[in-house]
Amino acid sequence: MADLHVRSVLVTGANRGIGLGFVQQFLQMPKPPEWVFAACRDPKGQRAQELQNLASRHPNVVIIQLDVADPSSIKAAAARVEEQLEGSGLNLLINNAAIAKMTTLDGETLEDMIQVYTTNTAGPLLLGQAFLPLLKKAAQGSPGSALSCSKAAIINISSSAGSIASPLGWDKMQVVSYRCSKAALNMLTKCQSLGYREHGILCVALNPGWVQTEMGSSSGDMAPVTVDTSVQGMLKVLSSLSEKDTSTFLNWKGNVLPW
Amino acid sequence: MADLHVRSVLVTGANRGIGLGFVQQFLQMPKPPEWVFAACRDPKGQRAQELQNLASRHPNVVIIQLDVADPSSIKAAAARVEEQLEGSGLNLLINNAAIAKMTTLDGETLEDMIQVYTTNTAGPLLLGQAFLPLLKKAAQGSPGSALSCSKAAIINISSSAGSIASPLGWDKMQVVSYRCSKAALNMLTKCQSLGYREHGILCVALNPGWVQTEMGSSSGDMAPVTVDTSVQGMLKVLSSLSEKDTSTFLNWKGNVLPW
Repeated sequence: MADLHVRSVLVTGANRGIGLGFVQQFLQMPKPPEWVFAACRDPKGQRAQELQNLASRHPNVVIIQLDVADPSSIKAAAARVEEQLEGSGLNLLINNAAIAKMTTLDGETLEDMIQVYTTNTAGPLLLGQAFLPLLKKAAQGSPGSALSCSKAAIINISSSAGSIASPLGWDKMQVVSYRCSKAALNMLTKCQSLGYREHGILCVALNPGWVQTEMGSSSGDMAPVTVDTSVQGMLKVLSSLSEKDTSTFLNWKGNVLPW
Repeated sequence: MADLHVRSVLVTGANRGIGLGFVQQFLQMPKPPEWVFAACRDPKGQRAQELQNLASRHPNVVIIQLDVADPSSIKAAAARVEEQLEGSGLNLLINNAAIAKMTTLDGETLEDMIQVYTTNTAGPLLLGQAFLPLLKKAAQGSPGSALSCSKAAIINISSSAGSIASPLGWDKMQVVSYRCSKAALNMLTKCQSLGYREHGILCVALNPGWVQTEMGSSSGDMAPVTVDTSVQGMLKVLSSLSEKDTSTFLNWKGNVLPW
């Protein structure tokens, strides 16, 4: 992690699972960020207790109320972060918040398709738009022109289930609305990387692996990767990313995945 | 087209552009289908006049009212088609209806994301579900077990703009909501091919090329491919598809495209 020096980072879905893992490991870095913005839908709720405890011990953790499916909530969160940053930019936006509906191909509904797409795909689009001024500011304030995560980056947490080319097991994992939303998120990552490159912002899609989270366990089987291992791996990958990596789809070990 | 013998086909968005082209060319085959179900949102409207004229001359054309963004309209259309088929199945479902919003990455909204996804991605999912009994019936009533379009197939009309790997021009074609919806449609095609294979149904995503339609001309430049050339090409491709081709993404010339 020696090469990842971010002054500020925002993580969505930060109250549990992979999102909380990111917050914890940023705080454990030799040189932690000045600001770790931990966004979640219900900061006062029971499911944010662990994040609240963490924030009470670390003054650089700022909990932000954010519903990624609500454009006005996203705008309010961006205004709140801008205020806190007092003129400096945001280096890293980690779009981690996501939902899944465990249904079959036959049982999928329009409502589920829209709900999952709104959170998993449209949310990261709107967050990119809302935080663009702060990401640009971070890129402008960083020396050199080469892209990197220490300069400015959008990291979209995708899934192997979003890889159309992947021969993923069908019997256990139909989850069509989730798969479609993550394939679309991969396309969004491609579009963001093309559109934001001129602003000095690197964009990648990351597959965290099959992780021991609530979502990862919902197929009924034991997920093989711990949150700590996955997040450590992803942070190592982030620290290594450069110009050539923008617009790619990588797993937590740094391997390129097929779209 | 000697090898494509379908007794029945349903085309969505059949009142103009590529959809109307499919209807016309099915009628011109040496052995036309017994039933060509031409589905469109507003059969009585001005924009369906050409289709109405065609239907008045060809008794095997049945115009079906269908809004692919409305689950109850889809169910009603399936019931209407079932009634007309009098116990036989549907060989071919061509999911052609689609919309696009010409916006930039910065200008994309949640409303547009949802509207485009509902029509371009959720629609084909719901149509697959609603017509599954009729497609299964066609597969069961067809000799042999090998997949083919003459037996039973779902054809999702996709786009090169839906290929995440494609180096498509960014300056002219941002259309993020459209691109995300078509990447998701490609994923849906993969899921349908996996889920419906056991029922004897072939599923592919087809890129019609950059065609001289209202949508194809909306970028301001002249599209190089005529509707006739594109549809002729696609029908030739359909006639050649077999077991090995299900689950692929092909263009109108029959070349495999990267996801």
